[in-house]
Amino acid sequence: MHTVKHIQELRQFIRQTRWNRPEARIGFVPTMGYLHQGHQSLLDTARRECDVVVLSIFVNPIQFGPNEDFSRYPRDEERDMAIARAAGTDIVFFPQVEEMYPAPTKTIVSVSGITQRLCGASRPGHFDGVATVVTKLLNIVQPDYAYFGMKDAQQVAVIEQMVYDLNIPVTIVPCPTVRESDGLAMSSRNVYLTAEQRRQAVVLSQALDTAERMIRDKRDGLSADELREAVTATIRTAPLAEIDYAEVLSYPALEPIRALSEADRIIVALAVKFGSTRLIDNRLFHLRA
Amino acid sequence: MHTVKHIQELRQFIRQTRWNRPEARIGFVPTMGYLHQGHQSLLDTARRECDVVVLSIFVNPIQFGPNEDFSRYPRDEERDMAIARAAGTDIVFFPQVEEMYPAPTKTIVSVSGITQRLCGASRPGHFDGVATVVTKLLNIVQPDYAYFGMKDAQQVAVIEQMVYDLNIPVTIVPCPTVRESDGLAMSSRNVYLTAEQRRQAVVLSQALDTAERMIRDKRDGLSADELREAVTATIRTAPLAEIDYAEVLSYPALEPIRALSEADRIIVALAVKFGSTRLIDNRLFHLRA
Repeated sequence: MHTVKHIQELRQFIRQTRWNRPEARIGFVPTMGYLHQGHQSLLDTARRECDVVVLSIFVNPIQFGPNEDFSRYPRDEERDMAIARAAGTDIVFFPQVEEMYPAPTKTIVSVSGITQRLCGASRPGHFDGVATVVTKLLNIVQPDYAYFGMKDAQQVAVIEQMVYDLNIPVTIVPCPTVRESDGLAMSSRNVYLTAEQRRQAVVLSQALDTAERMIRDKRDGLSADELREAVTATIRTAPLAEIDYAEVLSYPALEPIRALSEADRIIVALAVKFGSTRLIDNRLFHLRA
Repeated sequence: MHTVKHIQELRQFIRQTRWNRPEARIGFVPTMGYLHQGHQSLLDTARRECDVVVLSIFVNPIQFGPNEDFSRYPRDEERDMAIARAAGTDIVFFPQVEEMYPAPTKTIVSVSGITQRLCGASRPGHFDGVATVVTKLLNIVQPDYAYFGMKDAQQVAVIEQMVYDLNIPVTIVPCPTVRESDGLAMSSRNVYLTAEQRRQAVVLSQALDTAERMIRDKRDGLSADELREAVTATIRTAPLAEIDYAEVLSYPALEPIRALSEADRIIVALAVKFGSTRLIDNRLFHLRA
């Protein structure tokens, strides 16, 4: 496994790979580090599907708001490297902020519509920061495939839209959310939780189970409002949970719906704070056969 | 020479080229067609410097304002093909609007700062449209070099900034403005001019000559205001000329200056309307040895 800190060095490696093995499929897993089994499953999928696997670890400052957790975002370089190595990663790209932003960027990639709601509404500018850094990373790595976790379903929708609109020559591969045994979605931010918050955090996946049961039992007559209310009621059973949003929208356009029958696919999407820790989770439902 | 209308077909050609000749340098000249000697010199430079020359002809709707000349922008496919062939072009990419924008784009690439003044101020949204379509074209063609004329000096500054910020793997090659024998900068829009407007349009390059003389004669004491006033006075000698802007700014940041000594490079940039035809021109001055 090669660890690369500089863009030019990475480009050189990719160029060499393309030159020596023009048929090689290059797979890319962009992360902010503090790797967990979710990231590991992205690496595993990339390893199965590609000849060369590139992992990037970069906590991207421009996707954090001024009062968010950029400076305290958890980091553990040594453990990340061990996980990357165990997953059969070929290259870890590990740039410093000065390498990615030698000067404040004047160029922003911005996706409208999809970014209006959910985390786009709660975290203004967040998805501009995500779209911009993902564009940069895709231009640096130039992979054939890029792997993203569906826990960040809105991020996946934004990136797929961006790749489509800008004709970026990459295939985006969304991968299923990986969960703890009690159902909590894996997240680097879970480490922030106190023991009691951690116990109660299971309420996010329980609320999504509630949604799944309701949709299974009475799909036809169900309104988005009824579903949202039931989900919200489930979350409220956890006394430490503070709801940022609990929404039922079409996917991937992320537009409001009234009857569930209005969309082919819907997403039930949650953001819930425990103290200052904000967790997200979601489930997608294919409603038409 | 191959003429290609579809993105997939072009990608296939590029992939084949990279596969068969991994060392080949691919040069790209993006244009809006109605080719003149300015475009021809871009093609000539690309031909000299590269192994494969790709020309695109696409009148990009999203860089035109609602009251601008998108629908009447001059087109002459047959002549364009003859010029491209004579210049030794390998591929002409000639997409329809529906190919480039199958749906209205939700993704915009936006460069701040540099785009505030000059054409950015006169044509709101123009440079978002330019940055977005150039990103798309660079992602489709994936050239090693891309050639742009310095008549659009602000466009060159915007694209160089964008390529730098987004780590786009291409080298931008700015090429000198080509002029008619009387000094008028070549432009597809010159065809709009009446005979009398055409005669008076020489005043743009005359105004730039005025600036050049003033800078040569009294570089040290000269203020940007004095220079701007002299340039403006020259343009006003043409009765049909209506000044959109006549500015003296730093280059490439395009920031206001007071004394010329404040910047290493300055640009004298003009936009002048003759009837409904808007012409631009500029000259760069390197002030420090």
